[in-house]
Amino acid sequence: MRVAVIGASGYTGLELLRILSRHPEFELRVATSEQRAGMSVGDAFPSLRGIVDLEFEANDPAAIAPRVEVAFTALPHAASAPTVVALRKAGVRVVDLSADFRLRDDETYRSWYGDHPAPELIGSAVYGLPELYREQLAKTELVAVPGCYPTSALLPLVPFLRQGLVEPTGIVVDSKSGVSGAGRKLDESFLFAELDDNCYAYKVGNQHRHVPEIQQEAAAAAACDVSVTFVPHLLPTIRGIVTTVYLRTNRPISTAEANAVLTDAYANERFVRVLPDGQTPSLAAVRGSNFCDVAVYSDERNHTLVVMATLDNLVKGASGGAVQSANVMCGFPEHAALLEAPLVP
Amino acid sequence: MRVAVIGASGYTGLELLRILSRHPEFELRVATSEQRAGMSVGDAFPSLRGIVDLEFEANDPAAIAPRVEVAFTALPHAASAPTVVALRKAGVRVVDLSADFRLRDDETYRSWYGDHPAPELIGSAVYGLPELYREQLAKTELVAVPGCYPTSALLPLVPFLRQGLVEPTGIVVDSKSGVSGAGRKLDESFLFAELDDNCYAYKVGNQHRHVPEIQQEAAAAAACDVSVTFVPHLLPTIRGIVTTVYLRTNRPISTAEANAVLTDAYANERFVRVLPDGQTPSLAAVRGSNFCDVAVYSDERNHTLVVMATLDNLVKGASGGAVQSANVMCGFPEHAALLEAPLVP
Amino acid sequence: MRVAVIGASGYTGLELLRILSRHPEFELRVATSEQRAGMSVGDAFPSLRGIVDLEFEANDPAAIAPRVEVAFTALPHAASAPTVVALRKAGVRVVDLSADFRLRDDETYRSWYGDHPAPELIGSAVYGLPELYREQLAKTELVAVPGCYPTSALLPLVPFLRQGLVEPTGIVVDSKSGVSGAGRKLDESFLFAELDDNCYAYKVGNQHRHVPEIQQEAAAAAACDVSVTFVPHLLPTIRGIVTTVYLRTNRPISTAEANAVLTDAYANERFVRVLPDGQTPSLAAVRGSNFCDVAVYSDERNHTLVVMATLDNLVKGASGGAVQSANVMCGFPEHAALLEAPLVP
Amino acid sequence: MRVAVIGASGYTGLELLRILSRHPEFELRVATSEQRAGMSVGDAFPSLRGIVDLEFEANDPAAIAPRVEVAFTALPHAASAPTVVALRKAGVRVVDLSADFRLRDDETYRSWYGDHPAPELIGSAVYGLPELYREQLAKTELVAVPGCYPTSALLPLVPFLRQGLVEPTGIVVDSKSGVSGAGRKLDESFLFAELDDNCYAYKVGNQHRHVPEIQQEAAAAAACDVSVTFVPHLLPTIRGIVTTVYLRTNRPISTAEANAVLTDAYANERFVRVLPDGQTPSLAAVRGSNFCDVAVYSDERNHTLVVMATLDNLVKGASGGAVQSANVMCGFPEHAALLEAPLVP
Repeated sequence: MRVAVIGASGYTGLELLRILSRHPEFELRVATSEQRAGMSVGDAFPSLRGIVDLEFEANDPAAIAPRVEVAFTALPHAASAPTVVALRKAGVRVVDLSADFRLRDDETYRSWYGDHPAPELIGSAVYGLPELYREQLAKTELVAVPGCYPTSALLPLVPFLRQGLVEPTGIVVDSKSGVSGAGRKLDESFLFAELDDNCYAYKVGNQHRHVPEIQQEAAAAAACDVSVTFVPHLLPTIRGIVTTVYLRTNRPISTAEANAVLTDAYANERFVRVLPDGQTPSLAAVRGSNFCDVAVYSDERNHTLVVMATLDNLVKGASGGAVQSANVMCGFPEHAALLEAPLVP
Repeated sequence: MRVAVIGASGYTGLELLRILSRHPEFELRVATSEQRAGMSVGDAFPSLRGIVDLEFEANDPAAIAPRVEVAFTALPHAASAPTVVALRKAGVRVVDLSADFRLRDDETYRSWYGDHPAPELIGSAVYGLPELYREQLAKTELVAVPGCYPTSALLPLVPFLRQGLVEPTGIVVDSKSGVSGAGRKLDESFLFAELDDNCYAYKVGNQHRHVPEIQQEAAAAAACDVSVTFVPHLLPTIRGIVTTVYLRTNRPISTAEANAVLTDAYANERFVRVLPDGQTPSLAAVRGSNFCDVAVYSDERNHTLVVMATLDNLVKGASGGAVQSANVMCGFPEHAALLEAPLVP
Repeated sequence: MRVAVIGASGYTGLELLRILSRHPEFELRVATSEQRAGMSVGDAFPSLRGIVDLEFEANDPAAIAPRVEVAFTALPHAASAPTVVALRKAGVRVVDLSADFRLRDDETYRSWYGDHPAPELIGSAVYGLPELYREQLAKTELVAVPGCYPTSALLPLVPFLRQGLVEPTGIVVDSKSGVSGAGRKLDESFLFAELDDNCYAYKVGNQHRHVPEIQQEAAAAAACDVSVTFVPHLLPTIRGIVTTVYLRTNRPISTAEANAVLTDAYANERFVRVLPDGQTPSLAAVRGSNFCDVAVYSDERNHTLVVMATLDNLVKGASGGAVQSANVMCGFPEHAALLEAPLVP
Repeated sequence: MRVAVIGASGYTGLELLRILSRHPEFELRVATSEQRAGMSVGDAFPSLRGIVDLEFEANDPAAIAPRVEVAFTALPHAASAPTVVALRKAGVRVVDLSADFRLRDDETYRSWYGDHPAPELIGSAVYGLPELYREQLAKTELVAVPGCYPTSALLPLVPFLRQGLVEPTGIVVDSKSGVSGAGRKLDESFLFAELDDNCYAYKVGNQHRHVPEIQQEAAAAAACDVSVTFVPHLLPTIRGIVTTVYLRTNRPISTAEANAVLTDAYANERFVRVLPDGQTPSLAAVRGSNFCDVAVYSDERNHTLVVMATLDNLVKGASGGAVQSANVMCGFPEHAALLEAPLVP
């Protein structure tokens, strides 16, 4: 099946090239980059020399549509929607990595991002977490790939909300992320000399655009409104998110019981690894892979569950998750091209 | 005033040498190291060549006591107490960096550390946070230097507990620490190849020995029992702690009001810098210095205060704090040798 | 074809597991580790949970030989030879990652490593650089995988020696290596707090055991004795070697001509990527991959060629190179399991 | 003595503020920054809050001159000269950290930098390496602070050239530098996600602007033309340079004899630490300090000396060296404000 990567020179785009280059079913035909149009992928990105034999081209949905069956769009929010609209009209199945189709409520979208560039498509995409929406993904032609932070928050959080074991308000999500989540952005704060050996919180509490996305899916799991205090921190790593979720239990729960909730929820999930009691998930153990590792500890004294998750923000948190959803949508084995071992050490 | 550093070859010991080498009042006379006894400090630690002109000697309190007026003890817990006892009996003022004299309750000490090696001294030390105990420090001859995590948790936490603005239970302290906090310990998990680009939680919830210490001082501030869920994470940095504290407010509080609580509490403190609204404290901005930077955000929707603090675990979190307390104890200017600018970038 | 990894819990052993887990022809049947015998691979190394479904066992060549056709031995030098002897006697083809069979001269081996544990096998192995010994590898049953530094020095060096364009003495090889080359060794100097933000030379000039190996293969290429001053440096990275070779030319050579020497030598090599003039090889562009990137600059003023190479010491410099040689030995496509894109960013 | 820092918001400017804030004789009166004019230093750079109590102002030499006796200019090359001219005319002593006054040959300057903005001052500055030009510095009013790479190359190189022990051509200088040497430059290649875990050569051989500077001072030491192949590499560290120099000896020299050359040359130098045989200089041991550590190894087989040096590029390689020269120029103790211990670990 022929595929395009639209916006292939950013970090998530490159990661799509990396993953798709080993995919047994998808054949990479188109890679776009406005800035590098006309350059070979290998000249622009020496790591892909000998791996991807394509030339970057400009983004022209009309010209691309006839050449592929599936497109991954890795463009900034608002810039993505028009391309998605054009590709969908031409019958191309789309996996969109932007924020444009994640929120199902027009009003919420507007308050965080401004007017929606394609309001008619709002609500028509399936949220690309196969662990939550596998059946719907098998039937859709438009996938909205979740944000990296929401994936890292929802996988540990949803099983407890579904079971009604925890309070839906006062939830704390403390995340620590490598800097590639911000893309290849020329901002002083992302310079090596500024970020090495450094760490700090940013967009604290209720200021990050991933808040409404986490709350939307958490509410769907809890079947009631959910309120989350979200504090992202920047880590001096390239990849990876460590998310620590704090939940108030509404009755005493032991660590073993809490662990069983996760184990049951993910018994059949290949990419969510529930760690045994006493182990905690680490960034390194998921580096470069599509796994999300989760574990839980119950501080019964304090009626508090600590649920931990790690994932690689560019893989399970973006491009790997996108391919996983595409596999489901296209009827391929869900793990195709995604069972690479993490890069350890 | 002549001083000794007992246990001078560990990370906190070396940091004491680094700070004391520029101290205008303390004169470094003795540095002990069992493993390196007989070596010059500069041969053992090339960074200190040309800075500290001493030879390491073995720890012999009887031989050391007559040669100094003040001793900093940087030995492991339980190993420290006998030396402290001997030095105190000989009239030497002691600043102890171990955990031996931080807890004032014998029973609590025993449940976390085992039998106390010098129970008669329990409760006789002053907790070495001048921001909380300045008057007592001026009158004591034995200082118990706080743990690095407790310092990073108490400075942001105490003002809110003292004002009774937050609930004393369900408190969450999510800390991220550089690896030097563990000392120069030969453990596989502290190897560069294991920790670089990595991050993970450990001793989750109620398992770290700093929990009872945080709770002891938090309870003193709140004038009631306080229950803290503490989750430390390891960062891929040498130095620094980022602590994010989550508190439930018992009435609506704006960020501005919360900021004023911190500003009032630390108006006269040279080493606690309250950041203006909208800034968040970073590790880099305190690297190598005795500062603790704090800031606060109120997520009013969720009745949750997010209070953030950063410090250098080897300076304000250990050796710098120790010298600060020693300055107070000895009547020197509290900032002597401690106003070095952070190493940025 | 069934394979064993003997010594599977060290860094090169783990890397073999990582690569072999995706190999289309080799089937991983045995993984040994004395320290972790009886543990599942996934429990011991969480990164491999869900990837490698084996239990570590103790190394018992007699018990292992009947169960596999090929064995990779990743044991320390001297410890490796007895296992290799036993496996070879039982007819198992062996790819040995230790130093035991790299040197073809008994005397040289002895002066650097001590008495050889299996002198009868000296000279019987083929040096596992397919770029130099492809034909011989196709016919052998015992491969001596090169050291990581020698691979990074020989690939840029050999083409110039073969052409007789440079002086065979006074050669300078300045290498910079990530710390995983030292294995998971519990040495203070490899602690994160010691190595982060650090860099230094070690075993300077003629002291590293890779010197005789580089000289042996360089001499074979030059058809005369070659003398190399080798200076390895430790980098604050987990993986990767950057080697910069300085050669005296014996006649004026332009950069373009020098580049052509490399391009001609490696025109048909899939894993050696010769960069265009003006680009320099980077660690990042080969991270996690089996590529070796090379480039050259001629400083004609100074009659000096600067030849640069980068590779991932655990892949092309060890386990990837081992699999590449095994592929050749077994008649599989040389690139099987080895065309993964580098992990960038 | 009142001083100004012109261009105080770049990395070398900030480092000057850091060092001058603890200087016993210099009083910081002016700090300029075009971009941050009007902001307090502490608001713009939180690390300096509570350390430097100044407001950035725009650079106006006429307004600044009457307020100070000494100015440090930390502006880009070509931009610096006009300010230097204006300050000198007003009688202000100037320590210039740009490249504008380092080269004494107009033609050489032009071929590397273009037309000189103040040709009348060429040759009037003293090269700010007190180890080479102490007497001249004591008499000058204009100091040209050396580049960071040249300082790291000349201190190990000069003693051997002065003694005539090595050949003046074919010299190889292989340097590895932290990224702060490039300043706070918004370039994709300096982003954390591009540089972490990375290392590569750049401006190879005879392309870096520090080549003519190294050659100028090396020639002065050798009393003949000197030709240097210079290969800088970028390290994944914020600070520090590791320089490894390769020299051809013109007669057999033992390591001990070579070490004696260094020891004799630097016997009375406080900031150049010659390490004992067998030790090699490390970045960490000089981090944040004004030291330059040097060591030597003679590979007699190969008639090659390996001379190693490490320094902190922002301290001894820039702002610390600048203050050291200013101390000499002003008759203060040469080490004033410069004897801080390195930040280890």
